[in-house]
Amino acid sequence: MIPKLIDPQSVAVVGASTKPGSVGYVILENLVTRFKGEVYPVNPKYDEVELWGRRIKFYKSLSEVKDPVDVVVIATPAPTVPKILEEAGLKGVKSAIIISSGFAEAGNAELENWVKAVAKQYGVRVLGPNCIGIYNAYTNFDTIFLPADRAGRPPPGPLALISQSGAVAAAIMDWAARRRLGLGFLANYGNKADVTEVELMEAFAADDRVKVITVYIEGFKYPGEAKRFLDAARKIAPKKPIVAYKAGRGKAAQRAVKSHTAAMAGAYEMYHGLFQQAGVIEASSVREMFDMAKALATQPPPRGGRVLVVTDSGGMGIQAVDALEALGLEVPEVPESIARELKRELLPFAAVSNPVDVTGSATDEHYKIVLDNLLPTVFFDMALIVTLMQVPGLTKNLAKYVIDSKRYGKPIAVVNFGGSELVQKFEEELEDHGIPVYPTPDRAAKALWALYKYGEVKRRL
Amino acid sequence: MIPKLIDPQSVAVVGASTKPGSVGYVILENLVTRFKGEVYPVNPKYDEVELWGRRIKFYKSLSEVKDPVDVVVIATPAPTVPKILEEAGLKGVKSAIIISSGFAEAGNAELENWVKAVAKQYGVRVLGPNCIGIYNAYTNFDTIFLPADRAGRPPPGPLALISQSGAVAAAIMDWAARRRLGLGFLANYGNKADVTEVELMEAFAADDRVKVITVYIEGFKYPGEAKRFLDAARKIAPKKPIVAYKAGRGKAAQRAVKSHTAAMAGAYEMYHGLFQQAGVIEASSVREMFDMAKALATQPPPRGGRVLVVTDSGGMGIQAVDALEALGLEVPEVPESIARELKRELLPFAAVSNPVDVTGSATDEHYKIVLDNLLPTVFFDMALIVTLMQVPGLTKNLAKYVIDSKRYGKPIAVVNFGGSELVQKFEEELEDHGIPVYPTPDRAAKALWALYKYGEVKRRL
Repeated sequence: MIPKLIDPQSVAVVGASTKPGSVGYVILENLVTRFKGEVYPVNPKYDEVELWGRRIKFYKSLSEVKDPVDVVVIATPAPTVPKILEEAGLKGVKSAIIISSGFAEAGNAELENWVKAVAKQYGVRVLGPNCIGIYNAYTNFDTIFLPADRAGRPPPGPLALISQSGAVAAAIMDWAARRRLGLGFLANYGNKADVTEVELMEAFAADDRVKVITVYIEGFKYPGEAKRFLDAARKIAPKKPIVAYKAGRGKAAQRAVKSHTAAMAGAYEMYHGLFQQAGVIEASSVREMFDMAKALATQPPPRGGRVLVVTDSGGMGIQAVDALEALGLEVPEVPESIARELKRELLPFAAVSNPVDVTGSATDEHYKIVLDNLLPTVFFDMALIVTLMQVPGLTKNLAKYVIDSKRYGKPIAVVNFGGSELVQKFEEELEDHGIPVYPTPDRAAKALWALYKYGEVKRRL
Repeated sequence: MIPKLIDPQSVAVVGASTKPGSVGYVILENLVTRFKGEVYPVNPKYDEVELWGRRIKFYKSLSEVKDPVDVVVIATPAPTVPKILEEAGLKGVKSAIIISSGFAEAGNAELENWVKAVAKQYGVRVLGPNCIGIYNAYTNFDTIFLPADRAGRPPPGPLALISQSGAVAAAIMDWAARRRLGLGFLANYGNKADVTEVELMEAFAADDRVKVITVYIEGFKYPGEAKRFLDAARKIAPKKPIVAYKAGRGKAAQRAVKSHTAAMAGAYEMYHGLFQQAGVIEASSVREMFDMAKALATQPPPRGGRVLVVTDSGGMGIQAVDALEALGLEVPEVPESIARELKRELLPFAAVSNPVDVTGSATDEHYKIVLDNLLPTVFFDMALIVTLMQVPGLTKNLAKYVIDSKRYGKPIAVVNFGGSELVQKFEEELEDHGIPVYPTPDRAAKALWALYKYGEVKRRL
């Protein structure tokens, strides 16, 4: 149990600073200007300061704060941390986030052990040290010390990220913000002196706002962790999809992992096997992890692996089939009887096999005809829809037909490639209505594959 | 020889139209408003028309045009095409682009044979029919009948695309425009009644503005084509890189190719072997093809496969190494003596192995130190530089140091992930100075791999 760590109502910031750009300043600014809860800045150097158009009261120490505090954020020099943590314990604070570095990662294992001992004695759960902490888009509880002009903040949404790397987490946050990707929660656990990825996974599993848990991991550090991960993931996975990307696979990569997080990268095959057993869907890059997560957050798992491909570009349809087949998914032919029916309703030169190629002369209605005639049938489990909006006959109304097809209860992924305003508007409309859109056929195919895999996980566990 | 087909000085448009949105209208608008050459609209229905703020004179027929015409663009109903082509031949026009559809692709092989016969008799070279034709960003010779709000026009630049699919070509054009990717030329050959991809390849090989030729192909159609492709590519490849993506690999995909372009998709292995023999670099998707082309257009081929990885994020460094190793490239350790030197100049907790991790506390200068000390040495053939700009110490000046490193004559690829303005500005600065930037480590790794492969091709052929 990590009480209120990802979702506190009140926060104290020890090491809050008025020096622009400093870690204690950025965190204070995040919380004072945006957090929907109480903030108690702690720094003996200040009394009351005018900042961001408001008067901010500073406390000399944690014990001076009389109100209850859910989480204390510590951003002071490493040697001062154990004492501050002790104060937090005495005050009855249950969770702490130690941003400060200079512990085990800097050869100072003794100081980290001291932190662990204090945490244990007072029953304070500790995230970090040497971490960027938590971002919660729902309440703007945000300990990320990178200002928003460097690292954008994504909007609330169904995805949660647990990252072993702080810089990777910050880069993902910035990237998600730009793409309006609903990354509602982010947690980075740094040296993992106490709170582990497994406990964060359990916390996100218990939060109804989270629909998919993503995990960026370089390697476990301590004996028994693999087993605990397996046990926890097996329980969570049938209810909530977990997608993981294990970085550090080859020999040189494992050397790098060792020097980066002192984690035991171990043989990559061990992780691969572990993920399979645990029902965790494995991605092979950060981007792929979010491609999959976006689909898992919005689409039901399919009953089987048979994909209907609808396209207005023969070439794109072929690329989609290439990608689907390479992943072991099926692209079965359209049954003769339905094909004859389609032949009558589509353009004379449309291809009514699978992929169904409505051709570059298609209108929005042609997509509707194909989807309504094929998606509900027993012959297809999901649909990959290619909409090259560059052709003249398509309009933004096509989005409506695609969104309407959700009523058939089968997963859908759309490929939309280009850059013009029409393309972007169309894409936003679809994504706002829970249809995942990808720029290339291989990415959409991989997302459908993840849904298929998750269906298997649900059946198996 | 396809005289002036990709670069005419004067163009006649038969089927030029004043009906907004029609094929003949969009082509006329492209040419009248942007083409840096003479335009002769042909349509017996009009005399003089006021359009786009200018008076446009129409000709009743091709023979009425007294000036010489390099290329005639035909956008009239299919049955009228042979006669128009004959007129073009009588006038001495050497090249025609037939946009019109309704030929072999619509079951009308006889009409297409007639076109071929006329072309042969009069010595007119024909692109198409059933194609979108040519886009030349240098002169804005542009027969693409999709208006710019649907399909953006990319800026002049060193890449040329030959595409068997019109819709795929249009989508690529739109995508390239958005990304400011220098796609200087695009050619789509439709039914390939006369001019083939091989001749287009030779035309781009002969044009000094083209640095890299990209080819989107679904399959050859006629006997002997594979051999001609091989012979031509083997001659071109050592001088100018050719990157190809063959769509239609699996069984269902080949079924789709057959119905799309009536091409013989054949066993994918045949194409794979052909590309290898011909020295053509093979991509596995459209996006990958341009990732590679961008690097090939700006970077020299490396002497070997040893990559220096510099990063401010251990996690990203690990991902880069994963990707490089998976592609068979090496990430050798930094020699002991240089490592000791670096250790003194970088931060205490920087990793001085390979990847060199300057850490999230790095400054621009740390990158400079690493690049200057390692890239010129005999131990490394190229560099993959990860710059997560979300960390606090980096500024846009880092771009200068990266660009300066070009003086070592070794290929460089940069990974820059995120979305904030700083990230984008930094990226533009690098790309404007000929450093290819990628959003993820696997894409940068694949680009370096393409450079490595091209080095092999040059040595072999």
